[in-house]
Amino acid sequence: MMKENWFFESSLPQTEGDIKIGFKVRKKVYSGKSKYQKIEIFDTFALGRILVLDGIIQLSQNYEFIYHEMISHLPLFYHPNPQKVLIVGGGDGGVLREVLKHPLKEIFLVEIDPKIIEISKKYLPFLKLKSSLKEKNVKIFFDDGANFIKKFKSFFDVIICDSTDPSGSSRVLFAENFYKDVFDALSKNGVFITQSGNFLQQIFEIKNNYKKLKKFFLFVKIHRAAVFDYQLTDFSFILASKRIDFEKFNFKKIKKRFKNLERSFGKLKYYSPEIHFSSGILPQFYKDKILNP
Amino acid sequence: MMKENWFFESSLPQTEGDIKIGFKVRKKVYSGKSKYQKIEIFDTFALGRILVLDGIIQLSQNYEFIYHEMISHLPLFYHPNPQKVLIVGGGDGGVLREVLKHPLKEIFLVEIDPKIIEISKKYLPFLKLKSSLKEKNVKIFFDDGANFIKKFKSFFDVIICDSTDPSGSSRVLFAENFYKDVFDALSKNGVFITQSGNFLQQIFEIKNNYKKLKKFFLFVKIHRAAVFDYQLTDFSFILASKRIDFEKFNFKKIKKRFKNLERSFGKLKYYSPEIHFSSGILPQFYKDKILNP
Repeated sequence: MMKENWFFESSLPQTEGDIKIGFKVRKKVYSGKSKYQKIEIFDTFALGRILVLDGIIQLSQNYEFIYHEMISHLPLFYHPNPQKVLIVGGGDGGVLREVLKHPLKEIFLVEIDPKIIEISKKYLPFLKLKSSLKEKNVKIFFDDGANFIKKFKSFFDVIICDSTDPSGSSRVLFAENFYKDVFDALSKNGVFITQSGNFLQQIFEIKNNYKKLKKFFLFVKIHRAAVFDYQLTDFSFILASKRIDFEKFNFKKIKKRFKNLERSFGKLKYYSPEIHFSSGILPQFYKDKILNP
Repeated sequence: MMKENWFFESSLPQTEGDIKIGFKVRKKVYSGKSKYQKIEIFDTFALGRILVLDGIIQLSQNYEFIYHEMISHLPLFYHPNPQKVLIVGGGDGGVLREVLKHPLKEIFLVEIDPKIIEISKKYLPFLKLKSSLKEKNVKIFFDDGANFIKKFKSFFDVIICDSTDPSGSSRVLFAENFYKDVFDALSKNGVFITQSGNFLQQIFEIKNNYKKLKKFFLFVKIHRAAVFDYQLTDFSFILASKRIDFEKFNFKKIKKRFKNLERSFGKLKYYSPEIHFSSGILPQFYKDKILNP
């Protein structure tokens, strides 16, 4: 919906549509359609430039680092020594930019929509996709992530699912089948992370995803962050692992690795070892709604 | 703004008005004007019943506990043995309900607007104002908080400033003079807390309030919580004390007191000792924006 110079976000899939959020627009930058989705870019006053897919904000210039740092560094620091990483979706390059701050052997990125790559290179330079794709350890594939992942057995140390919300081509990335294939594609100490919506409107989704992951993984843990880009509110990430007990957290080791990272790549803006720890603490009413059967 | 059956919140004072948030309304319950403010009550789909003052949501039936638990239990648990408490504003009774869960000698509540008391008793039964006002240790005063507090020297162990945002009659509650009077009215180990707006649109206000409090208090600390009622987003509380070092946190003692509280009054829904600790951890970009000169 465009009205005068305001962009109002569409309702999230599987929500009631009883909250409306709008941002004052300075300029409409791009509008087009790919085979998979409607793509728009606006310059807004509150968030800077925003990327909008099928009416939903995916990231903003001013605050994209919150989501991208959290979804990347949580699993990469939980894993003691990650070497091979798969990014599912994330064709905009935000996750890739953060993942590249770790010393990794191979990074695979599988994006279904080539148009996103093109748009990001042209209109979202702060995501640094152009330079990231020149890195020798990065390989990009154009495929459905749910299909692509079937080819791998015990291969990836970290799998990051940076998808849109569960509708259209993203629906398969929240299915039980996909989680099973993620389980198989992960190495012994492998760690999986997926975005899982916000705690205000999508808590039922969080509960469902948690339940599904629990069927395969011994360790499943929910983290939270104030991701302003996603309905302004408290947002969830779910981590899953066969062997890494997320409650046994080697704070000292993570601090050391974090220090090295910041020495090479400059200060992060949201993630820190302290935020890592604190973002895993949930209020009782979340636990009541999510963890109770 | 009312439009069809949607309530759109007014812009917060001192913000750019570049974000609009609306809630689908089931029913308009009340609309009136007191000497101090416009008062409205709506039944919404997303938040349940909401209290709106001068166009800004003050609390919702579904999520009021987040704000009320945090602004009450943070200072009451930081203080080792609180006996006398002052609530500035808070005529709706939400803070009072939580404060009464601690074994206290005297609780003073000073509200400028008698109409709020009337409205809350009639339309917001979940805040339990009627029964709270019957408690023997509760005294209520109708006065301007900034005026009322001048009468006390080294008297209160905890002062909770539960005000509306800084405009109109609330402006004085964010002034340097008021913070000076708070300092004088607090006992030796006294702890002050004030709401200080959200981190997305009001971070400049947070920085200002922090700076002002730092002029008088040796210890000042910012906490955060996902207060859905306030622009859905990450919300700030600032604590201040002459003698209590907020970084030296007696976790064991707080856990014990917390257990006693829950044994008597049932499980809290947001606040816990773990949330207490984690809510004091800020991401780097907040620190950069607030604490840097």
